[in-house]
Amino acid sequence: MSAKSAVAIPSPFRTREEKAREREEKREAVLRAAVRMFNARGFHATSLDDVAASLGISKPTIYHYLGNKEQVLIECVTRGLEMLRAAADEARAGEGNGLARLGYFLRRYGAVIMDDFGACVVRTGDECLSAEGAILFRSRKRDIDLAMRGLIADAVADGSIAPVDVKLAAFTLAGALNWSARWRDPAGAMSAEAIAAAQVDLLIAGLAPRG
Amino acid sequence: MSAKSAVAIPSPFRTREEKAREREEKREAVLRAAVRMFNARGFHATSLDDVAASLGISKPTIYHYLGNKEQVLIECVTRGLEMLRAAADEARAGEGNGLARLGYFLRRYGAVIMDDFGACVVRTGDECLSAEGAILFRSRKRDIDLAMRGLIADAVADGSIAPVDVKLAAFTLAGALNWSARWRDPAGAMSAEAIAAAQVDLLIAGLAPRG
Repeated sequence: MSAKSAVAIPSPFRTREEKAREREEKREAVLRAAVRMFNARGFHATSLDDVAASLGISKPTIYHYLGNKEQVLIECVTRGLEMLRAAADEARAGEGNGLARLGYFLRRYGAVIMDDFGACVVRTGDECLSAEGAILFRSRKRDIDLAMRGLIADAVADGSIAPVDVKLAAFTLAGALNWSARWRDPAGAMSAEAIAAAQVDLLIAGLAPRG
Repeated sequence: MSAKSAVAIPSPFRTREEKAREREEKREAVLRAAVRMFNARGFHATSLDDVAASLGISKPTIYHYLGNKEQVLIECVTRGLEMLRAAADEARAGEGNGLARLGYFLRRYGAVIMDDFGACVVRTGDECLSAEGAILFRSRKRDIDLAMRGLIADAVADGSIAPVDVKLAAFTLAGALNWSARWRDPAGAMSAEAIAAAQVDLLIAGLAPRG
């Protein structure tokens, strides 16, 4: 048997890359199971034992991949906040006038909020976190709020939206989109993207008839 | 000494009416202290011992006036839901076209949500309540949602607002206003009524410039 054909036998030993990928997949499965349980039951009512049981693993396995319950929650909200930040970065780098960039951001923002991790950002109150965790969480949410205010201010400045109180508009728009984390039925007929697009159309056009 | 002048001496004994009023004032003070602590700390992190201590009374006194912690919470959210229902009743009985009545409701709704009891409705998740309490809470919130949908549908029907997806519009408007329970600083310069009015103006006019 030549050396070449020996190499062709599938090895039962995983490569370094396969091990890293497998570890990442396991970590991801734990995180997704945890965020869904936090969203469905609330943080306080969820135990890591239940999360572990839903995956057929033990609680120490969760500690191994992600840490204690607060660390798991922080990882979940960080994931959601990073998706919102990416949406803001893409919007700012985008083409078109201020309204086009703001509309892009709002549609992405609304769809992220209907994702498990985005919904977790909305559903998590400061009281779920330690004092230190709450400070970090508030600071990262504030970054997203400031990004939204910046996009609104740019659109007011180039005249593509009406002059508005930027801070009040940011809270109003965020609230309209954040609320979908509470009411949207993931089994419903409309996709998260379609709902977000319809909401943003309504917020841009307003209730009163035009023209 | 005549019988008449004897009657003129102030009695240290309270009348039946005074006793009833005093009882009502005490019950109200307990309820207001509890709702503020639920809103500030979250339901799970609040103990009736802390509520009692803030009023210089004992926990059994709270039981006497309102019952256990879940009963206190249910009384708080019921108060908020009754304020929202009253807003809907007044709006429906009001003058003007569909948009005028819807606008009235939205402004009242927004101001109620910034009140302690209205904020408690928004901040309370089903997971704070027993299965029975959660069913009642959801049913009463649904009444408010249906009232909002009815007012939107009336305004679409008489052409005073643009044709919209009624259900999606109701969730979007409610979210925009509900969110103020989270961000509004009660010590801020603007009153709840002024903030709600500015938010409703924005939602009616939309972001895009008119005319």
